[in-house]
Amino acid sequence: MIIVIKNQSPEKQVNNLISWIESQGLRVHVSQGEYNTVIGLIGDTTRIDAELVSGLEIVENVTKISEPFKKANRKFHPEDTVIEAGGVKIGGGNFCVIAGPCSVESEDQILEIATSVKKSGALMLRGGAYKPRTSPYDFQGLKAEGIDLLMHAKNLTGMPIVTEIININHLPLFENVDIIQVGARNMQNFELLKELGRINKPILLKRGLANTMKELLMSAEYIMAGGNEQIILCERGIRTFETFTRNTLDLSAVPLLKDLTHLPVVVDPSHSTGISKLVEPMSLSAVACGADGLMIEVHNNPARALCDGAQSITLEQFKKLNGKVNKIISALKD
Amino acid sequence: MIIVIKNQSPEKQVNNLISWIESQGLRVHVSQGEYNTVIGLIGDTTRIDAELVSGLEIVENVTKISEPFKKANRKFHPEDTVIEAGGVKIGGGNFCVIAGPCSVESEDQILEIATSVKKSGALMLRGGAYKPRTSPYDFQGLKAEGIDLLMHAKNLTGMPIVTEIININHLPLFENVDIIQVGARNMQNFELLKELGRINKPILLKRGLANTMKELLMSAEYIMAGGNEQIILCERGIRTFETFTRNTLDLSAVPLLKDLTHLPVVVDPSHSTGISKLVEPMSLSAVACGADGLMIEVHNNPARALCDGAQSITLEQFKKLNGKVNKIISALKD
Amino acid sequence: MIIVIKNQSPEKQVNNLISWIESQGLRVHVSQGEYNTVIGLIGDTTRIDAELVSGLEIVENVTKISEPFKKANRKFHPEDTVIEAGGVKIGGGNFCVIAGPCSVESEDQILEIATSVKKSGALMLRGGAYKPRTSPYDFQGLKAEGIDLLMHAKNLTGMPIVTEIININHLPLFENVDIIQVGARNMQNFELLKELGRINKPILLKRGLANTMKELLMSAEYIMAGGNEQIILCERGIRTFETFTRNTLDLSAVPLLKDLTHLPVVVDPSHSTGISKLVEPMSLSAVACGADGLMIEVHNNPARALCDGAQSITLEQFKKLNGKVNKIISALKD
Amino acid sequence: MIIVIKNQSPEKQVNNLISWIESQGLRVHVSQGEYNTVIGLIGDTTRIDAELVSGLEIVENVTKISEPFKKANRKFHPEDTVIEAGGVKIGGGNFCVIAGPCSVESEDQILEIATSVKKSGALMLRGGAYKPRTSPYDFQGLKAEGIDLLMHAKNLTGMPIVTEIININHLPLFENVDIIQVGARNMQNFELLKELGRINKPILLKRGLANTMKELLMSAEYIMAGGNEQIILCERGIRTFETFTRNTLDLSAVPLLKDLTHLPVVVDPSHSTGISKLVEPMSLSAVACGADGLMIEVHNNPARALCDGAQSITLEQFKKLNGKVNKIISALKD
Repeated sequence: MIIVIKNQSPEKQVNNLISWIESQGLRVHVSQGEYNTVIGLIGDTTRIDAELVSGLEIVENVTKISEPFKKANRKFHPEDTVIEAGGVKIGGGNFCVIAGPCSVESEDQILEIATSVKKSGALMLRGGAYKPRTSPYDFQGLKAEGIDLLMHAKNLTGMPIVTEIININHLPLFENVDIIQVGARNMQNFELLKELGRINKPILLKRGLANTMKELLMSAEYIMAGGNEQIILCERGIRTFETFTRNTLDLSAVPLLKDLTHLPVVVDPSHSTGISKLVEPMSLSAVACGADGLMIEVHNNPARALCDGAQSITLEQFKKLNGKVNKIISALKD
Repeated sequence: MIIVIKNQSPEKQVNNLISWIESQGLRVHVSQGEYNTVIGLIGDTTRIDAELVSGLEIVENVTKISEPFKKANRKFHPEDTVIEAGGVKIGGGNFCVIAGPCSVESEDQILEIATSVKKSGALMLRGGAYKPRTSPYDFQGLKAEGIDLLMHAKNLTGMPIVTEIININHLPLFENVDIIQVGARNMQNFELLKELGRINKPILLKRGLANTMKELLMSAEYIMAGGNEQIILCERGIRTFETFTRNTLDLSAVPLLKDLTHLPVVVDPSHSTGISKLVEPMSLSAVACGADGLMIEVHNNPARALCDGAQSITLEQFKKLNGKVNKIISALKD
Repeated sequence: MIIVIKNQSPEKQVNNLISWIESQGLRVHVSQGEYNTVIGLIGDTTRIDAELVSGLEIVENVTKISEPFKKANRKFHPEDTVIEAGGVKIGGGNFCVIAGPCSVESEDQILEIATSVKKSGALMLRGGAYKPRTSPYDFQGLKAEGIDLLMHAKNLTGMPIVTEIININHLPLFENVDIIQVGARNMQNFELLKELGRINKPILLKRGLANTMKELLMSAEYIMAGGNEQIILCERGIRTFETFTRNTLDLSAVPLLKDLTHLPVVVDPSHSTGISKLVEPMSLSAVACGADGLMIEVHNNPARALCDGAQSITLEQFKKLNGKVNKIISALKD
Repeated sequence: MIIVIKNQSPEKQVNNLISWIESQGLRVHVSQGEYNTVIGLIGDTTRIDAELVSGLEIVENVTKISEPFKKANRKFHPEDTVIEAGGVKIGGGNFCVIAGPCSVESEDQILEIATSVKKSGALMLRGGAYKPRTSPYDFQGLKAEGIDLLMHAKNLTGMPIVTEIININHLPLFENVDIIQVGARNMQNFELLKELGRINKPILLKRGLANTMKELLMSAEYIMAGGNEQIILCERGIRTFETFTRNTLDLSAVPLLKDLTHLPVVVDPSHSTGISKLVEPMSLSAVACGADGLMIEVHNNPARALCDGAQSITLEQFKKLNGKVNKIISALKD
């Protein structure tokens, strides 16, 4: 961390700051420029709150040099982390397609979709039981019954299941869920993250709509700081001024995150764009830039498409998509 | 709600859609343009999920005409709502300044600040007991002890207190808190909102960093749908590309929200900008455009300013600010 | 275009509006809802300024149904446009890699780079002669001399050249340039666009940092309205809150633009991210989602890299990248 | 400027960088941290292109300490600049309201508006002659005739006039215009800025939709670097994800800009919000936070409001607004 002191700051206040930094167990290196004094901090700066320091009257500017995430940082853990859930691996060269409906709606629906996506090459099944909705008047999911139906599908197909948690107190219901998803709106629900840090189960952590990559890594760090280091990161689009797509899928995040962290990174092309015809091209792009997996919404019944969101593709489209995904993977391996 | 059908859509699918809409208890009005068919929905459209409809193959575009918020809507409740907490009123012409430290740190700190801001004109006391922090390694607040210290300050000064909740399970600790704050990061923690809809206590709901005004109103609607209609909305800045300020304070939201809803709207000029010298000018601006109150961070000890964020002003600055605020209020009343 | 009238609007004003619309040569279709009157416009609505109409006291909301771009619209021109410049084709299945330095610096530099990128598979040469820089104190390019040096490189290698124009009055200097580039900051310099509409030469039009896809298409329309229909669109990243990358590359724009327009769409992975190690993965992603070409910055001399921006890759890296690009193209063709 | 070198960078490359910096006439101060080497630059760093340096393989991070704008910087010019145009002053305590129609439409229109706004307290007249429009099919202004009509109004009322330039080659037509406006879309049309730096006439420079305050200051610097130091800055809203307002008015920019620069800062509440009922509250807010003036769109004929944009207020509303503005100014002076 580098602290730039404002021109003509009272020496006493500067010395107070230096003493305080040293009292936190760090060493300082002071250098005097033409206009400004610069204080370099040497040692473990995670205990220094940069925002607070930058608020001091005498401070012009604070620059962090080392990233504030330790456990998620690739610098201290160079090898890829491989997450294993229900016999399926993700990360470290193991590519994984997770597919399923937006919401679990009925036994028939989830079993038909599960069977079909498995045949087409999906390795895990997704499906929403608890749905966070912007309006209190919209459908909120089948809840506990939805999780039961996912279990049926898991028993039938052998596919591990991924489903979203929205309330700490629901955790006991997730005992047999293979991967617990934290949705975009809960990425900074730190109380939920802390709780998930105490369990021993992979977490799929989605990037928030207005969160930077660094904040995503800090949220992973929250879970890891509690002891649970099985995290899969998920890029799912950020909020921008562009209104044509629901969100703007930030694919640059994939190679950047993989550079910064050893955790696997998957992409959700369905929610990010909100347009079903973009699911295939964005899936192929995600594979091409190095994603470790895809999370895709698929629906089974175009006839009653009223309950299928704009972003879902059909079972047939998913099969075709998966074939192309495999071609890209092969092309890049050659 | 108006649904524009794509050119050359199969008549059968269009009729299916119309039947489905009618089965939801709505009437339709179909009009045939040169290129497109347009279906107008007549009746209570809150039960129709616009996102789902817009996902249909045959649908080009869906426009909502009536707002999806009912209880918060000024159309159905033209008079200003006045919230009362601990004997203090806010809204409907009652201007209220809420002041206090970012975090409660010690008995001395909170009592000194409370006594001073009261003398300067603050009507309510704020102070963080549970602090949501981006990093798991940063100070997370004094927690239950922080609430106890706020109670001391309340008993001493008679000022009602406002403090933030971050976990549903902490609710019992907030029994004697006068106004419960929902922070920006929890604005779409719908489970928390639902729980707060079941209690009988005013809620101060902050706008999320990447949330539109409509989403803020929908989150208020979540609480109100549960039965608790005592909501104060708070504009506190949104995330934009500008990096000079921490967030961009969106003051246009104040008159717009007051036009859309009967709920009081307050402004937090401290968190939004993250720069203490902007607190005064932005407070005056907030008053000038019609805010019902201000929520201001104040600290008492510049000497140990290290624990005071960039956005806090001193007790002396607060006193001066409050004087100017009153001048603007008087000027606008004349 | 659909105009929703506010509840309880004076009938006289509504009738005035209807008369005015009809006086513009359009027919209207009025439908009466429970709360609102809705006016549908039938005919050529490009002459109606939606923004002005939405400003009327009695208007609640205006929705455009047909897009305001005509010449660029794929609906009226279903086949892909193929642009030909200096014997090289782009669009309609013709993939084209444009490579070269950020700025032309010297004869040696541009000739070495041109020779090398051609050998590696580039079909066109790019190079900045006039550089728009944020600071008046930064290097502004070699100007006319830069264009001369590009001509040398063209003569030597046979590659057509692409270079940016920043001033209408420079147009005579661009006589032998094969494709004129309009940079992001000039995407809405309508006077420049109009002038370029009068010449007979392909234009590479970059998306502005804060411009929507629709605005990009409207800017293409400006050029096309003047008679010059040879436009190549270029996605190069948009400005968002994320600060890790310089801009956020919006790859969803590629399949969406190709759906909306018949014009070719290329991607610039260099400027968008500002990070050289992202150039390869983002290039592969661009190919995977259907881009018609890439525009890549390449530098020749890592030893004096001081004059090469963060986004440039080396000649060697470009060769490797190009090999992978071809693998993806083949994989998708199979 | 502070350059942080990556861990384990080859010493030779670091020394090369240091030599190069010294060859630019600067001194360096190298400090060795636990993980990183930090190079501090001492001297005039405006000649160092931070973006280029940050692109070097060995560089982790570059922080600018001194701002890259010199002539606009309040540090080197502490007193407020007062701009004088046609006998009216703006800045340094001289508050100035500029009012007039969006577009000049006819002699009657401009004369009626000019006479009325003058009586209500406006000190300058605005009016668009050349209109930059997103669509080539929309009305582009009366052009030279519009400027002539503004001259009539100036002769009649004595008010100096402000109108927008969109093309360098139109400059001769602006000879009698008192203040030349550069619109948001041209804020980074550097060729236009350079040309305006060569004339001796005040320039009203609007902030671009996606431009930071620093970029606005750099654009002012472009004009000032040419010799013309008579610049008025104008905040007019930035592009964000919020769609309720056309843009998000960033009022924090007012006190911040006034802190960074000695130039006057005015606010345009009409274009920023695009909603006429927000013009008054946002005008009052702008005054309250210290703006040196307002630029307000006013129209004269509600009956033919079709040609008046959503953001225009009536002559009567303007009069009322101006009265309130004066109350706020008085209140803050007391």
